[in-house]
Amino acid sequence: MDNSIQDQVLALDLLKSKQFSKLKAQLAEMNPVDISDFLMDLSSEELLLAFRILPKDQAAATFVEMDSEGQETLIKSFSDNELKDVVNDLFVDDAVDIIEEMPANVVKRVLRFTSSDTRRWINEILKYPEDSAGSIMTVEYVRLKKNFTVDEAIAHIRSTGIDKETIYTCYVTDLNNKLIGMISVRTLLLARGDEIVEDLMETNVIRFNTHDDKEDVANAFDKYDFMAIPVVDEEERLLGIVTFDDAIDVLQDEATEDIEKMAALIPSEKPYLRTGIYETWKQRIPWLLLLMVSATFTGKIISSFESALAGCVVLTAFIPMLMDTAGNSGGQTSVTIIRSLSLGDIDMKDIFRIMWKELRVAILCGLTLAVVNFGKMMIFDRAAISSDGQNEWYIALVVNITLCVTIIIAKLVGSVLPLTAKKIGFDPAVMASPFITTIVDALSLLVYFNVAQRLLGL
Amino acid sequence: MDNSIQDQVLALDLLKSKQFSKLKAQLAEMNPVDISDFLMDLSSEELLLAFRILPKDQAAATFVEMDSEGQETLIKSFSDNELKDVVNDLFVDDAVDIIEEMPANVVKRVLRFTSSDTRRWINEILKYPEDSAGSIMTVEYVRLKKNFTVDEAIAHIRSTGIDKETIYTCYVTDLNNKLIGMISVRTLLLARGDEIVEDLMETNVIRFNTHDDKEDVANAFDKYDFMAIPVVDEEERLLGIVTFDDAIDVLQDEATEDIEKMAALIPSEKPYLRTGIYETWKQRIPWLLLLMVSATFTGKIISSFESALAGCVVLTAFIPMLMDTAGNSGGQTSVTIIRSLSLGDIDMKDIFRIMWKELRVAILCGLTLAVVNFGKMMIFDRAAISSDGQNEWYIALVVNITLCVTIIIAKLVGSVLPLTAKKIGFDPAVMASPFITTIVDALSLLVYFNVAQRLLGL
Repeated sequence: MDNSIQDQVLALDLLKSKQFSKLKAQLAEMNPVDISDFLMDLSSEELLLAFRILPKDQAAATFVEMDSEGQETLIKSFSDNELKDVVNDLFVDDAVDIIEEMPANVVKRVLRFTSSDTRRWINEILKYPEDSAGSIMTVEYVRLKKNFTVDEAIAHIRSTGIDKETIYTCYVTDLNNKLIGMISVRTLLLARGDEIVEDLMETNVIRFNTHDDKEDVANAFDKYDFMAIPVVDEEERLLGIVTFDDAIDVLQDEATEDIEKMAALIPSEKPYLRTGIYETWKQRIPWLLLLMVSATFTGKIISSFESALAGCVVLTAFIPMLMDTAGNSGGQTSVTIIRSLSLGDIDMKDIFRIMWKELRVAILCGLTLAVVNFGKMMIFDRAAISSDGQNEWYIALVVNITLCVTIIIAKLVGSVLPLTAKKIGFDPAVMASPFITTIVDALSLLVYFNVAQRLLGL
Repeated sequence: MDNSIQDQVLALDLLKSKQFSKLKAQLAEMNPVDISDFLMDLSSEELLLAFRILPKDQAAATFVEMDSEGQETLIKSFSDNELKDVVNDLFVDDAVDIIEEMPANVVKRVLRFTSSDTRRWINEILKYPEDSAGSIMTVEYVRLKKNFTVDEAIAHIRSTGIDKETIYTCYVTDLNNKLIGMISVRTLLLARGDEIVEDLMETNVIRFNTHDDKEDVANAFDKYDFMAIPVVDEEERLLGIVTFDDAIDVLQDEATEDIEKMAALIPSEKPYLRTGIYETWKQRIPWLLLLMVSATFTGKIISSFESALAGCVVLTAFIPMLMDTAGNSGGQTSVTIIRSLSLGDIDMKDIFRIMWKELRVAILCGLTLAVVNFGKMMIFDRAAISSDGQNEWYIALVVNITLCVTIIIAKLVGSVLPLTAKKIGFDPAVMASPFITTIVDALSLLVYFNVAQRLLGL
C-alpha cells in the first residue's frame, strides 16, 4: 500500500521540476483515488495544470474523488469544453453529490452541460430526503426483458453496459416497469446461450423503497453480501439501484457519526485535518456547555450535604471513585446497546430481556468491585479512615453498598435510555457515556449520602 | 425489509403445523441469510428437520451463514452423505472460518470429506496470523493468460467460473504465477472478441501481502471501491483474493471493536443477546476494576488537600463539574483522534499539527466555558458562596482558571495518548474516554487545589 504514497511523492517531484511528459505517464499509471489525493494538496494553479495533463479517461474518475473545494476550483477554471467532458462522464449519483455541495452559480454552470434527461434525473434524486435510499441510488443500471435468451441478454449488456454503473446485477421489469426479477452476469455467463432469462432469474428480490433509511439499505449489504440492491417506489416500479461501494461509504459514515455522537461531538463530514479551528470548536462546544451546566446539579447535591460531609470529611475522598465507576459502568452498557441497535441485533421489543440481563450482569459486576474495594479499603485506607476518627468498618460498608447499588442503577439507566430514545424518535447514540455519566453521577451521590446518613447517623 | 421477518414467521408456522411441503416451497423462496436466521431460533431436532427440507442448492449457502453452535449441531447429526454434500459446496475461506470455531473431533470429521487439494489450502490459510490479509483471502478466483483473446477469456470463465467466489475480477499471471495484471468481466464484455487480454488489462494493480493487516485491506476497499483485491507473497506470486463482502465484515467488526474498546469493554464477537451473563461480565469487569483502582488516586489527591478543603468547603461543590468537563473535553479529542487513525485520515507524523490544532481549539472551548460558568456563578451561586464566608470573585476566579487550564490539558492529553499508543504498538482505541477521564480527573484536581491555595492562601 505504500506504493500509493510513493506514487504521489513522485508525481509531486515531477510537477515541481516541470517534467510534464513524465508526469503524464506517471499519472496514467495511478489510480484516480490516488491522483485525487495528490491533486488536493496542490495550489489552485498547480491543480489546474496537473488536471489538464491527466489522460482524458481518468479526468472524470479523478474529479469525482476530489473534495468539494477542489471540484469548485476546477469547475470555476474549466473552459466550457473541459467542463462538458467531465460532466458528460459523470454518473447521475456522483453528479448529485457534487451539486449538493456547490454554490448556486456553479451548479447553474454544471447543469448547462448536462443532457435534459440527466438534468431530470438529478432533480428527481435531489428531491429525496437526505438520509433516504433514494438519495444514494443511481439510475444507470442494466434492465432486461424476461423473454430474452441468455445470448440476447449478454448482447444487450455488451451494447449498453458502457453507461451503467454496474453491469453485474441486471434487473428484469415488466411493461409497467414493475420489478419482477434479478439475474447476475455470473448466472448468464454460466448458463446455456438459448436459455430464457425468466427461467433463470431470481423472483424473490430483496428491495427497498425510495424513502427507506439509507442506513437500513447499507445494513442489508452487510447482511446479505449483495453487490447491488434495487430501489422501488410505492407501486413497486424500479427507479434505481444502490451499489456496494456506496453502501460501504454509508456504513463507515454512520459508524463515525455514532462514535462522534457517543463522545458528545456534533458529527462532521470532513476529515480531521481538513476541519478548521472554528468548525471543530462548533462541533465540541454545544455538548460541553450542556454537560457543564448539568454537572452543576451534581455540585448542588454535594452542597446540600455539606454539613453532613463536614462531619465526616473522609467520605469526600471516595467521591471520584464512585462517580467514575458509575459513569464507566453506565457507559459500557449504553455503548453496547447503541451499537447493537445500529447493527440491528436488538430492538425495542427486547427491552425486558435486555434489562433482565443487565440487572444480573450489574449484580455480578457490583459484587466483584465491592469485594475488591472492601479488601483494598481494609488494607490500604484503614489508617487514614481511623485517623479521621471514623469506624473503618462502617465507612467501608457505606462506600461499597453505594458502589454496588450505583452500578446496578447505572447499567439499568444505560440500557433503558438508548432504547427509549430510539422509541421516541431521538438518536440513541446521544445517550452514551457523557450524558449517562452526568445522570449517574448525580444518582450515585444521592445514594452515597443517603446510605451514609442512615448508617453513620450524620 | 420487513418481508424477511414475515418470511421467517411464516416458515415457523409451517414447521410447527408440520406442513412440510409448503415449508419447502417457502424456504426455496427465501434468502439463505434469512433461512439461517430462522434456523438459529429452532431446537436441535427442529433445526435438523428443517435443514433436511432445504433445496440442495440452498443447503451449503445457508450452512455458511449460521453461527458456530448451529453448525456444530448440524455436523454432529449429519450422515456422511449429507456432510459430504455441504462440505463439497463450501468455498475454502468459509471452510476455514467454520473449522476455526469447531472442536477437534468435529474438525476431523469435516476434513475427512474435503479433497486433498482443499485440505492443503485450508491448512495453508490457517497458518496466517488472525488479523492478516492471508487469513481472510479466498483461493478460488479466475486466472487468465495474457495472450488470451477476449473470446477465449470469456470461454475460460464460462467453463471454470462455477467454482470461483467471484468471476467479475480476473487476474493475469505469468508462468511463475507472478501477478502481472487485472481485468474485469466488464472490460471483457465491452471489448471486441478478438482483442488480447494483455492489451486491455490494468498492470498497476493495487495488491496486499499475505501478512498485511486485514484492516488495511478493508480500508482499501472503502477508499478505492474495488470488488476484489489480490493477495501476493514476498515474491509477488498471486496466492488469493479478498472480496468486498469480507471487507465489509472486517470494517463493521473493526468499528464495533473500536467502539467497545473506547467504552472500556473487552471486545466480543457475538451479538449482544447471544452473549451469556458470565461472558458479558468477563467483558466488562477487567476495565471496571482497573479504572476503579486508578480512581482511588484521584481520591488520594482530595484527601491530601483535606485540610485546605475544610477551610473552604464550597470548593467541593465544583469538583464534579470540573472533573466531568475535563473528562468530556479529553474524551471528545481522544475519540476524534482514534477514529481518524482507524480511517487512515491522520498519522503519527501529524502529531505537531494535531497538537497545535487541539491547543487552539482548547483555548477557544476553555474561554467559552469559563465565561459562561463565570456568569452562572455570579448570578446563581453568589449567595451560596458568600454564605460560606468566601469572596465570590476569588472563588469564581479559582474555578474558572482551573476550568480553562484543565480543558487545555485534557485536549492535549486526549490527542497525544492515542498517537503515542499507536506509535509504540498499543491499540489507540484503549486510550479513549474512560482512561483519559481517570487521568484528567487527577490532573484537574491538582490544578484546582494548587490554584486555590495560591489565590485563596488556604
